Amino acid sequence: MNRVITIGREFGSGGRELGVRLANALDFAYYDKEIITAIVNHTDLAEGFVKEVVEGKSARYFPLNIGQSMNINVDYQIHQMQSIVKAQTETIKEMALKSNCVIVGRCADYILKDLRDEGQIELFRLFIYAEPESRLKRCKERAKEGENLTDKEMEKQIKRINKDRASYYEDYTLQKWGDKSNYDICLNTSFMNIESMIPHLAKLF
Amino acid sequence: MNRVITIGREFGSGGRELGVRLANALDFAYYDKEIITAIVNHTDLAEGFVKEVVEGKSARYFPLNIGQSMNINVDYQIHQMQSIVKAQTETIKEMALKSNCVIVGRCADYILKDLRDEGQIELFRLFIYAEPESRLKRCKERAKEGENLTDKEMEKQIKRINKDRASYYEDYTLQKWGDKSNYDICLNTSFMNIESMIPHLAKLF
Repeated sequence: MNRVITIGREFGSGGRELGVRLANALDFAYYDKEIITAIVNHTDLAEGFVKEVVEGKSARYFPLNIGQSMNINVDYQIHQMQSIVKAQTETIKEMALKSNCVIVGRCADYILKDLRDEGQIELFRLFIYAEPESRLKRCKERAKEGENLTDKEMEKQIKRINKDRASYYEDYTLQKWGDKSNYDICLNTSFMNIESMIPHLAKLF
Repeated sequence: MNRVITIGREFGSGGRELGVRLANALDFAYYDKEIITAIVNHTDLAEGFVKEVVEGKSARYFPLNIGQSMNINVDYQIHQMQSIVKAQTETIKEMALKSNCVIVGRCADYILKDLRDEGQIELFRLFIYAEPESRLKRCKERAKEGENLTDKEMEKQIKRINKDRASYYEDYTLQKWGDKSNYDICLNTSFMNIESMIPHLAKLF
């Protein structure tokens, strides 16, 4: 039976790094942005649009667009959203049934519960989080050259991205994003060294 | 520097079993009910009374007692509570500074943060929880002979004990019991085999 690790993560918590390292340590497939590409291939929608919806940005932009600058009508918008939800569900289930894998974000923990309950996969749902100071520190360390945000601006950006992730997750699953009852392990990376813990963490799955 | 693992746990989640096994695997001291005895030795209060307060039962009984059957006056009651809080804080800090250890319950995660921030100990704060069905199953398995509660009665008992634990923690720390931001690792034992995961979990500390 395939073993599937899903990773929900706060922006700035190192969840992506943890996912990549875990997949490498276990020799599991790793899916993150690949999910966007797969959704695009399943639908007739543009990659940029799919990305905005799946990252939860649509909730911020659409109310402004409807009936105004972009003349999108509500029915069409709902149809597009449904296509994305359907493609995302199918894509993630396909990935889980194909091989052992780590899937980052995209409500995979919620989508795959059915397969676990039917005994088709072993599912481990992780949520990675960190204290605000730790998230800021991590984001500053990995900021691209020339990205000169002040601490205040960066804190605002982190909060906004996490709010987007929460919105998308909650709209899709009707569950609270980051609520520990939806996960098997929640890890606070504020006082942890991700690299050195991976070999031991990997043995839990 | 001593390594200290604190374990907050929902009743029925296997947190105590996990704590005992972790302490054995790591050869750490293990403190659970010993904390009550130590508080009794630090104060002039009766063991039964200390136990009721530390387990959060006092919130249920005291309002009834005040000025009635037991003629306890409020000032005296507050003084007793303060004695317990002081003794509990001192006891748990002493234990943490004495040797590597696992401490179950008693707001140890909150009490020991100071020592961690001062660089006096390495602190790992665990919270162990489980889904309601899993908690019920575990409680039924470990029920003493002759303890013939119906499922409904047992569910009610589990809820009441968890409510007591939450009350005591929240009164003592002004933090929300079980809120993942107060812990380093939260483990949902619903789909886990505690015994087989211990050797790997132990390596994280």
